[in-house]
Amino acid sequence: MNEVGRAVISGLTSSIPAAWEVPENLRKAMEYSLMAGGKRLRPLLVVAAAEALGGSREAALPVACAVEMVHTYSLIHDDLPALDNDDFRRGKPTSHKVFGEAMAILSGDGLLTHAFYSVVQAGSAHGVPAENVLAIVEELSRFAGPAGMVGGQVADMEGEQGLTALEQLRFIHEHKTGDLIVFCLKAGGRIASATEAQLEALERFGRALGHAFQIQDDILDLVGDEGKLGKKTQSDIKQEKVTYPYFLGIDGSRAEADRLTAEAKKAIQAGCIPYPQRLLEIADFLLHRDH
Amino acid sequence: MNEVGRAVISGLTSSIPAAWEVPENLRKAMEYSLMAGGKRLRPLLVVAAAEALGGSREAALPVACAVEMVHTYSLIHDDLPALDNDDFRRGKPTSHKVFGEAMAILSGDGLLTHAFYSVVQAGSAHGVPAENVLAIVEELSRFAGPAGMVGGQVADMEGEQGLTALEQLRFIHEHKTGDLIVFCLKAGGRIASATEAQLEALERFGRALGHAFQIQDDILDLVGDEGKLGKKTQSDIKQEKVTYPYFLGIDGSRAEADRLTAEAKKAIQAGCIPYPQRLLEIADFLLHRDH
Repeated sequence: MNEVGRAVISGLTSSIPAAWEVPENLRKAMEYSLMAGGKRLRPLLVVAAAEALGGSREAALPVACAVEMVHTYSLIHDDLPALDNDDFRRGKPTSHKVFGEAMAILSGDGLLTHAFYSVVQAGSAHGVPAENVLAIVEELSRFAGPAGMVGGQVADMEGEQGLTALEQLRFIHEHKTGDLIVFCLKAGGRIASATEAQLEALERFGRALGHAFQIQDDILDLVGDEGKLGKKTQSDIKQEKVTYPYFLGIDGSRAEADRLTAEAKKAIQAGCIPYPQRLLEIADFLLHRDH
Repeated sequence: MNEVGRAVISGLTSSIPAAWEVPENLRKAMEYSLMAGGKRLRPLLVVAAAEALGGSREAALPVACAVEMVHTYSLIHDDLPALDNDDFRRGKPTSHKVFGEAMAILSGDGLLTHAFYSVVQAGSAHGVPAENVLAIVEELSRFAGPAGMVGGQVADMEGEQGLTALEQLRFIHEHKTGDLIVFCLKAGGRIASATEAQLEALERFGRALGHAFQIQDDILDLVGDEGKLGKKTQSDIKQEKVTYPYFLGIDGSRAEADRLTAEAKKAIQAGCIPYPQRLLEIADFLLHRDH
């Protein structure tokens, strides 16, 4: 996975053309957050989905970088004082602590906007058909927008006033986390000109995987190793956040994550995906990760 | 112009499919700002440019709505306490005063993201070739992004610490206002499959027009009628903002706006644009407006 991670980092670094007149501090703020680390899970999924259908890593990289920009902007804005008011992320000061609130807002806006520029490069630099690139643009705006990730964030914010049902929790995570993961899989597929049946298999895989990922996150917050996680455990309890273990218990949550991972793998195995191995490995890796 | 304005408002109202699961308050916040009024100059320019080349208004509307979404999100974020901290815009309370700061940030994010969805509809619903739609996506992200509008906003923010030269002021307005206006003209052209020469003429027109528009804004802030403007005059002086009249005087600024408007009109007249009339009227209207 490291090789893809390095390619993504190199792609992110060069994604804003050096000749463009970008104010120095804005460029710095955008790069600070992009380079702040993380698992790079979303770009990995884009590349893995493209390669699972025989597509090239190079063609997938602009979209892989785009989704990391979208994910990064969402973290910058979530961390703002008006939202989660977090001073640290992955052990480093958050954007508004380093660059001030105004620059954090604007660097998030810049990353979100530039993500679409990056998507288009899949077409112009790597020959992905224009129709496929347009479908990726459409899905990025849908899955990251008001009916997707932004909607999930709003639901989460409003849900902090008291969640009463597991269904509400599912809604939040389906949109806040799941939608962008589904996007990654389908976009990777579209880069490799997937058939409708293959896109459906990738969507089912992504939906189940995103759900399992979130449950595993909640479990790690309760019982994980702070050193490996790079953040305090039990923060959900302290923030009075409702989580899967709250509804299902630890054992029930583990069983549910197992079940969803198996469901994800089955979707891929049944879905006419010629090279499924890497996707199956990622599903197992996410289930057994400790950070 | 009213007819296009009405079509845009109707397009904005229906632009987020009713079937989409968008949290109620998020939808309300997005619609509140979209419906808050304004000249709808940017969508008018998209439609006028398309029609100037014989393109259809219907095909231009999704892009016209997209650019109004981008403009609206930029106002919501600009008005935030961390940026300009404005409580009113066009005589109505700003988004964060009505919906709170977190929702204002997220509704801006939602509008920006959804704008790209709207652009894609020009292709799927109105038959604009995929290559043209992709070029519009690329230019929207470039002209609204870190090297465009967001960059201009950062330069403006940093410039408030003291502008020393007319060149700096030009840089700010070229990006903060001008880039999106240039985008409108070129996007309208692309909807009607403009030639490279026509796109160049539209870009020159937009660049000069955007510049003249900003100078006229600065003049109106000094000498305009508060009732017609819907805001207090001389706010630039009170905020110690450096403006064109500061460098050029009122008469010098008027002469410069005249010169730029003539330059804009000349670019269109020399540019093989088959139906230039509406664009020329808009240029005159902007020069002689009183609000």
